[in-house]
Amino acid sequence: MRIAVCPGSFDPATNGHIDIIERSALLFDRVIVAVSNNLSKQPMFSIEERMALLSKACEDIPNVEVDSFSGLLIDFAKQKKATAIIKGLRAVSDFEYELQMALMNRKLQPDIETVFMMTNSKYSYLSSSLVKEVARLGGCIKGLVPEPIEEEILKRLR
Amino acid sequence: MRIAVCPGSFDPATNGHIDIIERSALLFDRVIVAVSNNLSKQPMFSIEERMALLSKACEDIPNVEVDSFSGLLIDFAKQKKATAIIKGLRAVSDFEYELQMALMNRKLQPDIETVFMMTNSKYSYLSSSLVKEVARLGGCIKGLVPEPIEEEILKRLR
Amino acid sequence: MRIAVCPGSFDPATNGHIDIIERSALLFDRVIVAVSNNLSKQPMFSIEERMALLSKACEDIPNVEVDSFSGLLIDFAKQKKATAIIKGLRAVSDFEYELQMALMNRKLQPDIETVFMMTNSKYSYLSSSLVKEVARLGGCIKGLVPEPIEEEILKRLR
Amino acid sequence: MRIAVCPGSFDPATNGHIDIIERSALLFDRVIVAVSNNLSKQPMFSIEERMALLSKACEDIPNVEVDSFSGLLIDFAKQKKATAIIKGLRAVSDFEYELQMALMNRKLQPDIETVFMMTNSKYSYLSSSLVKEVARLGGCIKGLVPEPIEEEILKRLR
Amino acid sequence: MRIAVCPGSFDPATNGHIDIIERSALLFDRVIVAVSNNLSKQPMFSIEERMALLSKACEDIPNVEVDSFSGLLIDFAKQKKATAIIKGLRAVSDFEYELQMALMNRKLQPDIETVFMMTNSKYSYLSSSLVKEVARLGGCIKGLVPEPIEEEILKRLR
Amino acid sequence: MRIAVCPGSFDPATNGHIDIIERSALLFDRVIVAVSNNLSKQPMFSIEERMALLSKACEDIPNVEVDSFSGLLIDFAKQKKATAIIKGLRAVSDFEYELQMALMNRKLQPDIETVFMMTNSKYSYLSSSLVKEVARLGGCIKGLVPEPIEEEILKRLR
Repeated sequence: MRIAVCPGSFDPATNGHIDIIERSALLFDRVIVAVSNNLSKQPMFSIEERMALLSKACEDIPNVEVDSFSGLLIDFAKQKKATAIIKGLRAVSDFEYELQMALMNRKLQPDIETVFMMTNSKYSYLSSSLVKEVARLGGCIKGLVPEPIEEEILKRLR
Repeated sequence: MRIAVCPGSFDPATNGHIDIIERSALLFDRVIVAVSNNLSKQPMFSIEERMALLSKACEDIPNVEVDSFSGLLIDFAKQKKATAIIKGLRAVSDFEYELQMALMNRKLQPDIETVFMMTNSKYSYLSSSLVKEVARLGGCIKGLVPEPIEEEILKRLR
Repeated sequence: MRIAVCPGSFDPATNGHIDIIERSALLFDRVIVAVSNNLSKQPMFSIEERMALLSKACEDIPNVEVDSFSGLLIDFAKQKKATAIIKGLRAVSDFEYELQMALMNRKLQPDIETVFMMTNSKYSYLSSSLVKEVARLGGCIKGLVPEPIEEEILKRLR
Repeated sequence: MRIAVCPGSFDPATNGHIDIIERSALLFDRVIVAVSNNLSKQPMFSIEERMALLSKACEDIPNVEVDSFSGLLIDFAKQKKATAIIKGLRAVSDFEYELQMALMNRKLQPDIETVFMMTNSKYSYLSSSLVKEVARLGGCIKGLVPEPIEEEILKRLR
Repeated sequence: MRIAVCPGSFDPATNGHIDIIERSALLFDRVIVAVSNNLSKQPMFSIEERMALLSKACEDIPNVEVDSFSGLLIDFAKQKKATAIIKGLRAVSDFEYELQMALMNRKLQPDIETVFMMTNSKYSYLSSSLVKEVARLGGCIKGLVPEPIEEEILKRLR
Repeated sequence: MRIAVCPGSFDPATNGHIDIIERSALLFDRVIVAVSNNLSKQPMFSIEERMALLSKACEDIPNVEVDSFSGLLIDFAKQKKATAIIKGLRAVSDFEYELQMALMNRKLQPDIETVFMMTNSKYSYLSSSLVKEVARLGGCIKGLVPEPIEEEILKRLR
């Protein structure tokens, strides 16, 4: 059985994230979406809320489960016996940062591979922070995030 | 009549900004320089000061006016009946960020176009924050910003 | 009256090209689509055929006309009294090449501006040469080029 | 069973290619290395020779086989019932070109995914054409290609 | 005698930094490693500690000395009668930022040249902040920084 | 004595090339401008002509001499006892290609360093091939190449 870890802050998950998770689920037997417990950023949603929103958004994909991690991603991946780490790519700057992280992770754990998948081009401009900024300034975020997440964002900002 | 909005933080305007505004004024009937009231950054100049400095720097260009906005740029542009948003481009990372914003703005308002213009290559290394850093550390900023803005920066730092 | 020149090889025009031409027509009073007579490449369509296909594809946009040029683009633009040259941007390498050409054109003729517009992200992977390659290898090109151009390509390859 | 296609010209295969093939073999049940029969380039090795050299270089990886294709890669992948196309990434320009091809392939066949893997950083500068150029000019190519391929290249150039 | 300044935050120095310093020492008669006293970041090591760690790491390179600066780098370089500023390059985003700084420095002081050297590809993913993050999260940093620096980082984090 | 090799096709040398050569001459005791005898391109000027034009353009820089090479650059550099290879950088794609070549050269000869210098931003769009293309199409190339080279190009095209 091949297991992949799909990590991120997911604060909150966008349709771009969901798109990558769905594609990953076709390539691996089991996909563990791993929410990073990164304390350095002030999140809009707590880690439990982010996990709950992701679980709901992925509930129809049978081989996907949601988890969280707080140490090194590569240690989490090893503990979960993952074969691969999956990252979505949008733009060149994404690629360079992801390349840096993937090379560091390879140094730390050579037998876990990082694989990159392309975000759907219709989501190429999406990021969690841009979605939150648009919502904060009163813009419409319909179609950018799953519907229940849209509702939660709007509730927070009221 | 075709109206364009030229947005930015302009904290303060550099000669690179003025160069783009001057070129824009040849392409559109009316150019509205729109100072962003972005509270997340601690500015050197208040929004009123930034507007006053820009107005002075552009006083010889008849079809340019200076305004400010605090919500979504695209809502401001719509309210002003703008046909286009104008952005100056310097480097690749500029381009990617601007592409992301332009795609988001197109999603939010498909009938307002973002057009990109090249900064003069002699200003290709200029940014407001670099100018402020150089001035703070005692470097000469002559030729990087309009003269009245140079004086104001030096006054602040004394 | 502001005139813009929208240059290219258009061998043949793709839906990405048509998208940029349509957007340009909203920003300028008159848009001259300028087919480059670049002899160094072996084209699939003659310059007359490329012009005819473009004219058909743009026949519903009243302020667009199709022309050709064989010398320097900037000389053609000047002769047509153009205010601007319009280029569509897709990727970073596009941007760098276009920046180089725009800076050279500014040196040759400082009063004609190059403006860049974003290709629709759904056409971000399109190029004339990729379309021809896909068609040559038997792939479906529906939706990538205007319908009459699709038919012409298939006719050539039979 | 998940099958992946790993395409390329492989004229000849470098250690960077072999590295990607080895990693792919850990992620998929079966990896089909697909040599492109691209007639537009004048190859150093015939398609049969390239396949034979690759077969020898991969003979110790049980789930890898070598094949060739002459039409669209995506048609070959479909015919082989592949789940994924695997591409190695080295640099930013690689990434952009590969992104373009991946988006076109997704348009042609939405249910076959392109996944990207990082070339080992010690091979980040390698390409078949650079290896051939170095060998032609008398440079040492030991460590850049598998040993039997090194011998074949030197034999050709004598 | 040709003097070069090799600036950085060095919080702390990595093996990538030491690699660039060693290479620089072969190109110039005297290399001054210049630790930036940039107060805007909260450093892990004080400027004196960073200088001491660097001095130890470079003690075997006879023509290298360690110093610090707090104003403009270019003023420090001028005061030291430097011919050149040396910067290591890793990735494209590095290059763009460094190009911007180099152009600004050339404007401020046209007779001091910025020269760029390639970081060893085996250190291409290294940065001081990534090393600190890995160490904080319990990852092994052996081989990423000189041994005495590794010990100091671990001591701090205990 | 530190010797640097500054390689290129120089078909013909542009003001951007001369700018880099002049700067190099301040950093090294002796600079050998090395004209590549690359037979795969059809040059406008023979190797002897290119050397003569360069010699004339550099005649006022005492520590610069002009030579040619036909094998591997790194072998030429070694034979000349060079410490460094100097390359001018303009754009990101330049950087990636040059990085690839530099890494290959380091593999072939680890003790010769490649150093990169920034082209003056006023020449950032210049290349030999663009200059030739502009001249062929009747554009003015004054200020893009040294005056005697301008005359030679125009003579060829008459």
